[in-house]
Amino acid sequence: MNDVNKLILPTGVSHLIASRQTILPKRLVAPGPAEQELEQLFRAAACAPDHDLINPWRFLVIPAQKRADLGELFALALRERDPSATTEQLEQAREKAMRAPLLMLLIVDETKGDTQIDLNERVLSAGCSVQNILLLAHTMGYGTGLTSGKALKSESFRSGLGLHAGEHAICFLSMGTVSERKPFKTRPDIDSFVNIWGAEHG
Amino acid sequence: MNDVNKLILPTGVSHLIASRQTILPKRLVAPGPAEQELEQLFRAAACAPDHDLINPWRFLVIPAQKRADLGELFALALRERDPSATTEQLEQAREKAMRAPLLMLLIVDETKGDTQIDLNERVLSAGCSVQNILLLAHTMGYGTGLTSGKALKSESFRSGLGLHAGEHAICFLSMGTVSERKPFKTRPDIDSFVNIWGAEHG
Repeated sequence: MNDVNKLILPTGVSHLIASRQTILPKRLVAPGPAEQELEQLFRAAACAPDHDLINPWRFLVIPAQKRADLGELFALALRERDPSATTEQLEQAREKAMRAPLLMLLIVDETKGDTQIDLNERVLSAGCSVQNILLLAHTMGYGTGLTSGKALKSESFRSGLGLHAGEHAICFLSMGTVSERKPFKTRPDIDSFVNIWGAEHG
Repeated sequence: MNDVNKLILPTGVSHLIASRQTILPKRLVAPGPAEQELEQLFRAAACAPDHDLINPWRFLVIPAQKRADLGELFALALRERDPSATTEQLEQAREKAMRAPLLMLLIVDETKGDTQIDLNERVLSAGCSVQNILLLAHTMGYGTGLTSGKALKSESFRSGLGLHAGEHAICFLSMGTVSERKPFKTRPDIDSFVNIWGAEHG
């Protein structure tokens, strides 16, 4: 047992983890986290396991004044993969950039530091950092959601956001105040994702 | 603000997150988590974001009676990539399977469910589930460490553990009581992994 137990009981942390749910960006409204909260959130992200300390991931925050530019990148990526996209579809693509008071892109670098550490390990470390952010944001009272989409792989999108070769845009992380909460989705049964090596599969 | 705030303050969660550190498997000794704790840990893992509910990851627990078999897989993988490996090196490879009272392999399936969801998104979800386990284990007083190695990509290792085509062995998760704690490693500065799009890079 260690010092943490004096502050937080496992049942509290279990509850914290279980009571977080994904909120779609369209249901995340102002206010978003204040500057001091943002700093705490990023400090939590920095505590992800990264045994070789290469810090292979980064967050690119999309500030308010750049949302329209991001929307144009979404629309451009859509036009590139579907030249017949309608004006309405392009407008929907643009609108996705306007949601949630805090919007940031998670980027993982495949080449930084020791190249023996493969992309999967780097993305795993990024996932740990993201979960730290999601849990702390939840404790602060903010809703969060991870979203992705085909634009993330588009060259125009990548170059528009200044991604280097070797960098992968993994997903967006949106955060804000929850305007509407949907019922919880059922979590998978433990039996469906835990096996004992050598035991018969049920 | 939501119900979680009545149970846990953000400062408590920040402390929880910041006070976790990676412990090498050789410093993880008995006792490991009891059966009821293990169930709580896996319930926490199940709460990772996985918006399409494909549950693309699983944990393969290596029980005590299978540790020697795992050691043989490590030794075999070493011999395959280095036929000149010495008896001592092979013994070291075997010994790695004997550490930590709880040892499990994290496996991510690239093909399960909607194949539009790429491997990076799946590994990210796995990282979130792993961080839930690491944090809850820390609250319970257990140390944890993630380890990988070249064996994870070896065909003999993969087939020995029964991985399907499309499954990736990402890392081992070890857990137990901490026998010795090392000083904390410095966490990366926020400025090194957070950028604002459109702002000049410092």
